[in-house]
Parts: sequence; structure tokens; C-alpha cells
Amino acid sequence: MKTARLEAFSDGVIAIIITIMVLELKVPHGTDFAALRPLLPVLLSYVLSFVYVGIYWNNHHHLFHSTKHVTGSILWANLHLLFWLSLFPVTTAWVGENHFTATPTAVYGVVLLMAAIAYYILQRAIIKQQGPGSILAAAVGRDRKGKLSPVCYAAAIPLAFANPWIANGLYVFVALLWLVPDRRIERVLTESN
Amino acid sequence: MKTARLEAFSDGVIAIIITIMVLELKVPHGTDFAALRPLLPVLLSYVLSFVYVGIYWNNHHHLFHSTKHVTGSILWANLHLLFWLSLFPVTTAWVGENHFTATPTAVYGVVLLMAAIAYYILQRAIIKQQGPGSILAAAVGRDRKGKLSPVCYAAAIPLAFANPWIANGLYVFVALLWLVPDRRIERVLTESN
Amino acid sequence: MKTARLEAFSDGVIAIIITIMVLELKVPHGTDFAALRPLLPVLLSYVLSFVYVGIYWNNHHHLFHSTKHVTGSILWANLHLLFWLSLFPVTTAWVGENHFTATPTAVYGVVLLMAAIAYYILQRAIIKQQGPGSILAAAVGRDRKGKLSPVCYAAAIPLAFANPWIANGLYVFVALLWLVPDRRIERVLTESN
Amino acid sequence: MKTARLEAFSDGVIAIIITIMVLELKVPHGTDFAALRPLLPVLLSYVLSFVYVGIYWNNHHHLFHSTKHVTGSILWANLHLLFWLSLFPVTTAWVGENHFTATPTAVYGVVLLMAAIAYYILQRAIIKQQGPGSILAAAVGRDRKGKLSPVCYAAAIPLAFANPWIANGLYVFVALLWLVPDRRIERVLTESN
Repeated sequence: MKTARLEAFSDGVIAIIITIMVLELKVPHGTDFAALRPLLPVLLSYVLSFVYVGIYWNNHHHLFHSTKHVTGSILWANLHLLFWLSLFPVTTAWVGENHFTATPTAVYGVVLLMAAIAYYILQRAIIKQQGPGSILAAAVGRDRKGKLSPVCYAAAIPLAFANPWIANGLYVFVALLWLVPDRRIERVLTESN
Repeated sequence: MKTARLEAFSDGVIAIIITIMVLELKVPHGTDFAALRPLLPVLLSYVLSFVYVGIYWNNHHHLFHSTKHVTGSILWANLHLLFWLSLFPVTTAWVGENHFTATPTAVYGVVLLMAAIAYYILQRAIIKQQGPGSILAAAVGRDRKGKLSPVCYAAAIPLAFANPWIANGLYVFVALLWLVPDRRIERVLTESN
Repeated sequence: MKTARLEAFSDGVIAIIITIMVLELKVPHGTDFAALRPLLPVLLSYVLSFVYVGIYWNNHHHLFHSTKHVTGSILWANLHLLFWLSLFPVTTAWVGENHFTATPTAVYGVVLLMAAIAYYILQRAIIKQQGPGSILAAAVGRDRKGKLSPVCYAAAIPLAFANPWIANGLYVFVALLWLVPDRRIERVLTESN
Repeated sequence: MKTARLEAFSDGVIAIIITIMVLELKVPHGTDFAALRPLLPVLLSYVLSFVYVGIYWNNHHHLFHSTKHVTGSILWANLHLLFWLSLFPVTTAWVGENHFTATPTAVYGVVLLMAAIAYYILQRAIIKQQGPGSILAAAVGRDRKGKLSPVCYAAAIPLAFANPWIANGLYVFVALLWLVPDRRIERVLTESN
């Protein structure tokens, strides 16, 4: 299978995920500003998940930038990642509707952690296919962000029961970490051309 | 990242936004024409938002017409625009279900205003990347429509509380302004080829 | 704007329309076959609309086969068509949930009629742009099906109040008319290559 | 019609189907782990259907790998397949919400069977168009998996009423059968290049 079709399909699924999350923002009951207040935490959780899905979409592109063909294992590793991303809407809504309380926050962390692990598996599958001299392996390098993120999620899950705001703060921290433009892969790709 | 993938992803998100708005048109209760009457304001607000999303899709294409590669800042400016567009369905439904009353009309204006600002930021990011001699800068020129639109939205927001119909009239006026074909960019692009 | 992007966007919208129609098939209450019975008319109306959207998607492709660039008027004629197609899910569900009774059947006919008119306007806009010697004009020829279809819909709308089954029979008849492969355009296009 | 557009449209529909299935995972009521328990069977049925749709997407690609143009009969055979796939979300939710009881399990099997038959019809239509020396015919060969799968579904439907777990076990078995990478088509395609 050509990478282009896998990318187009993944883009389609990610575009749908990022958009159906907004379906959880229910039309307010009432016609004044007070009617908007219950929406606020749902909106906040939507913003956080929107940024996370945006980060995954951005990084997903980098992964496949240096790949022309995909094997069966890459294809299923990719579907595995999309599966965990597809759980973002329901967990996002659960967190938002319950004002970032302990259990929803922890379960949100589990989904973030599983998506990070799925991303890592996908990355390994592509590097393995590229073999020695893999452009992606060189680009990823020591992969500090990629290793720090799941550690933060794993720490946030039990911490959510102590204080949900520490856990949610960790989720925001990791998102900001990735929002800072990642010049590593771009640099290596530019050098290799 | 290549512009083509960013365009395809944006098209996907915009296609989903324009289509899920229709999910707010609930199946009527009853089997006569009277059952359709409560749908009428929702249908009207749907038509207005359909036109707005159509305008954004059309203009979005012009923005990226003269760009081959996108930087991280363009990518996130684009996601920022898609975020505000993704709030169209819920605000459209709120306006429609409440028959264009004051607060929903004002909040609809806020979303229109934020989308216009996000579009402006995206436009500046592309012009900055293209540097001096930017085709887009030449095409946009004095950008009268682009500057008039947010002024109209900003005026409409407080006016909604005086008379919602003035605010909604302003939204219709701006939409008609953009529906009139914009030959500026096409002309400059044709000349530059 | 290039035809390719307009086609991709239209395909996206049509793909979403054809798929969200299935959201109206609500999960049955109960766990036996009797629980499926209320779904049957909804399923029937879904099949009919699925076929109609499939026909529009197929014909849409033929329209743009011989066009390389689209003007503003073609773009908005296309969005106008997509608007009427976007009303298929809600009218389909209304017809199905009310067992093909008079008013829903007539309103379904209005949406079919408006979509047919929108398609005709789009066809004229493309032929006008192609000018004399238009491949599409030659392919369409006398356009018997294109002219018969809206006549059938227009007849079905009042007939729905006399007997809804005549109206629904007319909708099925027109769908079958189009399902029969249309070799006209393909033939002319083959000859012109 | 070019294969590329049919593939893109099918990918769009399949991407939407695989994503809207997750809409059936309703936001839990309550904020503790107990609130997640009713979601578990729905999540399980979602995983199974996610894998099935993934398999269809993967196999769909193989089908069209060796085809450049599509005829009207291939186009409608493809829409026929998409129709049955579009019934996955509602049947998946029915099975999940009712904890894999007899009738929903049997109906799920009917949809799986119909999708398998639709896939077979599509495969025959492509082979027929390619004529003697068809690459697809050579690739499919004796098509053991393709023939075994509908037999398993057909057996599972009555068995669901004896013991739903036998039927569901058969569905899982067939899914695993296809998850094992199918090197047949890839091998023949590689040899033919």
C-alpha cells in the first residue's frame, strides 16, 4: 500500500475525530449568558483535546514523511493509534461534563497514555522497515519528548486521585511541550535531501 | 509539510463542519406542515452558516494558492481558524432554536469575529513566510473586505442587545459582501503566471 | 480553483451525507426481532436515499470530467447543490419514521426537486464556461432523463396528498431510471479523446 | 471514472463509518469507575467492528490496486459494499448495549454476511472487467479465506440462538484470520511488476 493512501485515510479519520468532539458541546438550554456557564468546562476540555489531536496530526505527518510504502504491520500499528485517538471525544466529554474530577481525569490520562504507546509502536514499526540508516531514526534521535510524554501521563493517572488539577496541569504541560515547534525532524530531513 | 496535505485536511474538517450543522435540524415531531414550522428559524440559521462556511472554504483555497510549503506557525494558525469554524454548528443551532434572540445572536457574532481574526492571523503568517514580493500580499492589497468584516461583527455584538435584527442583518450583509465574486486575488495570480 | 479540489471537497461532503443518514437508524429498543420492526420503514427510506446520493455522486463526477478550472459561479452552484443534498438525511428520517405518509413524502419530493434544479443550474454554469463546442453540452444532448426527473418530482408532490404510494413509486421509478447505466457521456468523452 | 476518485470516496465513507461507531460510546453517567462498567460491552463490540472495518479498508485497497478505470457495475458494486458497511455502527451498538445476546448477535452476523457477499460481488465485477489474465484473479487464487468467512457467518447466525458466545467466537475467529497478513496479493503483484 502506498503511504499516500494511508495518510489520506488517517487524515480523514483525524479530521472526523477533531470535528465530532464538538458534537459534545450541546446547544445551551436558555438564552442568556448564564446558559453558557455549564458549557465552559466542556469547552475547556474540547480546547485541550483539539490541541492534542492537532499535535498528533502534525507528528503523524512527520512519521510518514520519509516512507514510501507501508507494510501490514505499519498499517495495523496506524489503525491501533487511530483507535485510541477515536476515544478522545467520549473521554473529553466525560472530563468536561464532570468538571475535571478525579476518575474522568485519570481515564483521560489512560487514553493519552495508550495513544502515546500506540504512537511509539508505530514509530518503531516504521524505523524497523526503513532498516539501518533510517531517516526517521536519525530524526527522532534520543526522542526526549516522546519518552517524557508517556511518563507524565503515567504519573498523572494516580495523581488525579490525589488532586485532579495536578494531573490536568501535566496534560497541559505535555501539550505545550509539543506545541513548541519541533525542528529536529525537519532539520534532518532538510540535510538528507 | 506540503500545502496539499494541509489543504486536504482543512477541506476534510470544513466538509464535516458544513455537514454536521445539518444534524441540528431535528426530525420534526408530527406529520403535517405545522410540524415544520419550528424548523424554520433553525433552517434559516443553517443557510446563513452554510454560506459562511462556504465563503471560508473558498477564501481558504485562495490563501494557499500561492504557497508550496507550510511552516509550524502556519499549521497552527490554520488549526486555530478550524477551531473557531468548528464552533459554528453549536452556535448556529443556539441562534436558530431561540429564534435569533439577543444573547445567542451576540455569541454567534463573537464566533464570527474570532474566525475573522484567526483568518487574518493565518493570512499574516503566510505573507510573512513568503517575504517581500509576496503574491498573497499583492493579491490582498488594501484588503477592504477583510478589514470591514470584523468591524461589522464587533459592531453587531453590542447591537444584538439593542435589536437582534440589526446584528443579524449585519451578518447577512457581510456574507453578501463576500458572495460577490472576489476577482482581486485571481487577477493578480493570473498576471503573475 | 482547480477542479480536483472542488471534486475532493464535494466527495467529502457527499461521503458524510451518505454516512450520517445511517445515524437516523436508532439502536432498537429490545433484543428480539420485533424490536427491528419499527426500523424497517426507516431502513427502506435509507436505502432509497442512499441510492439517490450514490446517483448524484456518480453524475457529479461526469459533470466535472471535462472541466479543468472552476469559476466562482460554478463553485457556488456546486455548494447550492450540496446544500440541498445535505437536507436528505433529515427528510429521509422524517419519511421513514412516519411510514411514508403524505406530508413527509411531499416534502421529500420538494428536496429531490430542488436538488434536481440545483444540478441543472450547475450543469448550465459548466456548459456556459466551456462555451461553444462544450464537451458536456454534447454529452448531455437532449438530456431526457435530466428533464423527466424534475417533472416526476413536481408531479409527485401534489400526488403525495392523494396517495403517498404513487409519489413514493415515482421516486423509486426515477432512481431506477438513473441506475440504468448512462453511457451517453462516457461515449462522447471516449470519442472526443 | 478513475479508480483514484472511487478509492478516495470509499476511504472517506469508511473513515466516517469507523469514526461514528464511537458515537455509540455514550458519555458515562457518574464520575467513578462503576460508571464505566456499562460501557465495557459496547467498547468490546466497538473493538471488534473497528477491526472488521479496518480489514475491509485494507482489503478494499488490494482490490483496486490493479485497476485503473471503473465501470458502472463496479461503481455500484462498491456502493453496495459501502451500504452494508454503513450498517456496522447501528448493529455494533445493538450488540454491545445488549451484552451480546442472541438476536442482536445473529443480526450482526447477517450484516457481516451481506458485507462479505457484497465484497465477493465487487471482486467478481473487477475480475470480469480485467478479463482473462486478470491480476486480481491470479492474486485471489482459490480464495480460501474469502470463501470460509461467509460460511462462518452463515453458521454463526443460527448458532447465535443456541449460544451467542459460539457465534461471537466465530466472528472473532474470522477477524483474526484476516488480521494475519495476507501476502498472496502482494506477492503476485510484486511478481507481475
